[in-house]
Amino acid sequence: MARIRTELDTFELGFDIPAEIGMPESEVQTPCLVIDLDAFEQNVKRMRDRCAELNVRLRAHGKMHKSVDVALYQIDHGGAVGVCCQKVSEAEVFVRGGVSDVLVTNEIRDPLKIDRLAQLPKLGVRAGVCVDDVANAAELSQAAARHGTNLDVYVEIDCGHHRCGVASGAPAVEIAKAVTAAPGLTFAGLQAYHGSAQHFRTFPERKAAIDAAIAMVRETLSLLEEEGIACPAVTGAGTGSFEIEGASGVYTEMQCGSYAFMDADYNRVLGTDGKPLSMFANALFILTSVMSHAKPGSAICDAGLKAQSVDSGLPVVFGREDVTYVACSDEHGEIADPDGVLAINERLRLVPGHCDPTCNVHDWYVGVRGGRVERLWPVSARGRML
Amino acid sequence: MARIRTELDTFELGFDIPAEIGMPESEVQTPCLVIDLDAFEQNVKRMRDRCAELNVRLRAHGKMHKSVDVALYQIDHGGAVGVCCQKVSEAEVFVRGGVSDVLVTNEIRDPLKIDRLAQLPKLGVRAGVCVDDVANAAELSQAAARHGTNLDVYVEIDCGHHRCGVASGAPAVEIAKAVTAAPGLTFAGLQAYHGSAQHFRTFPERKAAIDAAIAMVRETLSLLEEEGIACPAVTGAGTGSFEIEGASGVYTEMQCGSYAFMDADYNRVLGTDGKPLSMFANALFILTSVMSHAKPGSAICDAGLKAQSVDSGLPVVFGREDVTYVACSDEHGEIADPDGVLAINERLRLVPGHCDPTCNVHDWYVGVRGGRVERLWPVSARGRML
Repeated sequence: MARIRTELDTFELGFDIPAEIGMPESEVQTPCLVIDLDAFEQNVKRMRDRCAELNVRLRAHGKMHKSVDVALYQIDHGGAVGVCCQKVSEAEVFVRGGVSDVLVTNEIRDPLKIDRLAQLPKLGVRAGVCVDDVANAAELSQAAARHGTNLDVYVEIDCGHHRCGVASGAPAVEIAKAVTAAPGLTFAGLQAYHGSAQHFRTFPERKAAIDAAIAMVRETLSLLEEEGIACPAVTGAGTGSFEIEGASGVYTEMQCGSYAFMDADYNRVLGTDGKPLSMFANALFILTSVMSHAKPGSAICDAGLKAQSVDSGLPVVFGREDVTYVACSDEHGEIADPDGVLAINERLRLVPGHCDPTCNVHDWYVGVRGGRVERLWPVSARGRML
Repeated sequence: MARIRTELDTFELGFDIPAEIGMPESEVQTPCLVIDLDAFEQNVKRMRDRCAELNVRLRAHGKMHKSVDVALYQIDHGGAVGVCCQKVSEAEVFVRGGVSDVLVTNEIRDPLKIDRLAQLPKLGVRAGVCVDDVANAAELSQAAARHGTNLDVYVEIDCGHHRCGVASGAPAVEIAKAVTAAPGLTFAGLQAYHGSAQHFRTFPERKAAIDAAIAMVRETLSLLEEEGIACPAVTGAGTGSFEIEGASGVYTEMQCGSYAFMDADYNRVLGTDGKPLSMFANALFILTSVMSHAKPGSAICDAGLKAQSVDSGLPVVFGREDVTYVACSDEHGEIADPDGVLAINERLRLVPGHCDPTCNVHDWYVGVRGGRVERLWPVSARGRML
C-alpha cells in the first residue's frame, strides 16, 4: 500500500491549540479547558490574604495545574514563595519556566531521577525533596556530592493518610539525624500532609483528622528539640483543611493547590457552617459542545473520559439546572435534556469532578474574560510523570 | 523575585522519553507504558486470521492506541484496510503518519472541524465520517464543495448503546437519501456499533444485544434496497462482540481496537465457554516502581491517577499473586504487600483497567522483548481531542 508522508502544509502548525486570542467562547474548539480569569484571580488573591492573616507561608502546589504561567501568577500576585510538585520532571519544567524555589513533595528513589534532581541547584534554584527512609538520605547525599550541589530535605511523616511517610516521633527523628549528618543535604523540616482529609465532607471530620496530624507533628518537633536539631519548617495542608493547619501554630507553610481552580468534589466539602466552602469559586471548566441530539431527551457532548478524570465523580454542568451530565464513555458525554433545550454546537461549561488528573490530559488552558479568550497558557508539565 | 530562564543545557532534549533502546526493563523510567511486543504481534496476527476466516474486513480502531506506529503495524501485518478514529485531529495525525484510509466513527458538527475534515482528501487519502442528522449532511457537503473534495459518509444508527446515532429503519434511510443527493458526499454505508455490549460479561448477554443490532441493520438494509440505494458497507463491532457481527452475514467491516493491547476489564469478559476470552493476551502494561515502603504490609508505587484511567476499575498486578494494587491517588498507587516481599525500585507490570483512556495520558510506548527495550513509539495522537 502506498504511504502518504506529505507534510500537511494546508494545516498550520499548532492547529491543536483550541482557541485564538479574542475569539468568543462560543467558537472555542472543544473539548478543552477554560479558565474563568476573574474567578481564578480572585481565588489566588483570597488565598494570599488568608495566609497573610494566618501568618503562614504559601507554597502553591503545581501538581494541580502543571502550568508555569499559573505558578508564576501565584508567585507574582498570590503570595506564593515558590511551588511544590510531585515529580522531578515537573520540577525541571517549573525551573525552566523561571520558578526559583521548588519542593518535590514526594520520595525519589530511582538513581536516574535522583541524579536529575541533584542537578537542579546548579541552575541557581532552591530544590527540596522528601524522605521517609534512612537509605534514601544516603542516596541523595551521594548525588548531591557528585554534582557539588545541596538539596533541602524534608522528613515526611505519615500523619494519617497512610501512603508515603515514616512514623512520627522517634523514627522520623532518626531520619532527620541522618539528613543532618549527610554532606550535601540540609534538613529543611517536616512534610506532614494529610491528603485524604482534604476531601472529608464535614468540618468536624477534617478537624479531627488534622488535629491528630498536628499532635504527631508536635511530638516529633519536641523530640527533635531534645536532640538539638533545629526544624526550620513544617509544610503540608491543602485546600480542604488549611485553615486548621494554618491556625495550629506548628505548621509554617501551606501546600494548597486546588484553591486556584476548584472542582466538583471540593464543591461538596462543607465548611464550619455546614455549607459548601464559598471562599473559592469554580474557575476551571471543561468546555464542551453538543455534537448529537438524535434522541429528544438526550444530547451527546464531545467531552468523555479522554477529556477528564472521573475518579471523583462525573462533571457538573455549570450554571444550568435544566440539563445534567449523566454518563460518559471514551469520547462522549451524555447530557439529560428532558425539555430538549440544547442545540447542536451549543457550548456548555462542565465543572470537572477532580481538577488535578483532568488538567493532566489537556495541553492548553484557554483563559476567558467577558466571554472572550484573553490568555492561552500551555499545560507546560502535562504528562511529566517521571 | 529574580527569574531564571536559563536553557537547561545540562539536560538533554527529550529527557522525558522513559527509556533507551537496549535498556533492561528493570531500569526503564516509571511510570510509563510498556508493550510486550511478542504478545502484541500475536494479538494482531490472530485478529487478522480470524477476520479472514469470517470473510470480513478489519478497520482497526486507532482511538485505542493513538499511535501511527501501531496503526501501520496493524495495516502492514494485521490485515487492516485502514484505521478508524473518533476525532478530526486524530485523523490528521494518522494521515500525516502515512495511513491512507481513515474513518472518523463519530459525528462532526463544529464548522472549523468540518472544514479540517473536508481538507483531508486533498492529500490523496480516503476520509470517512458518520452522520445522524440530515442537517449535518448539508454541512459536510458544503465543506467538501468548498475544497473540491469528496467524503465517504456513513449513516450511524443507534443499535442499542443509546449514544449517537439515528433510529434504524426509515429515519436512517431518510439521511442516506440526503447523503446520496448531496454533492461531494458518497453514501458509504451504515455505522452500527454497540459500544456498551462489548463489555457485557457473559456471551449470551452480548449475543442478545448484538442480535438486536443485527436485526436493526437488516431492517435498514431492506428499506435502502426498496429505495434503490446501494449500501456498500456495514461497519461496527469491537473486541468483545466481533465474532457475532462477523458471522452475521450483514456486517462487512470490524472496528476492533482493544484486541491489540487488551486490559483488565476485557479480561473479565467471558467467552462461549464461560471462561475469560483467551484469544488475545495482555500486551499493554503500566510499568511502575516501588518508591516507598515505610509500612511493612503496604508498598507505594509511582503510578496513580495521572498514569492511568480508573473508570473501569483499578489495575491488576501482572503475574503476581502475592501483591495487590488496592488504592490510588494522583501520583501514588498503594500495593498490599502482606509478606513484605517488595523492594524499593522494584518494577511491577500493571494491567490497566481500561486501555483507551490510559494510553491517552502517556507520550510513549516502550516496546519490550526478552526483558529489553526494542522499540520506542510515540503516542502520536495523544491528547488530540478536537
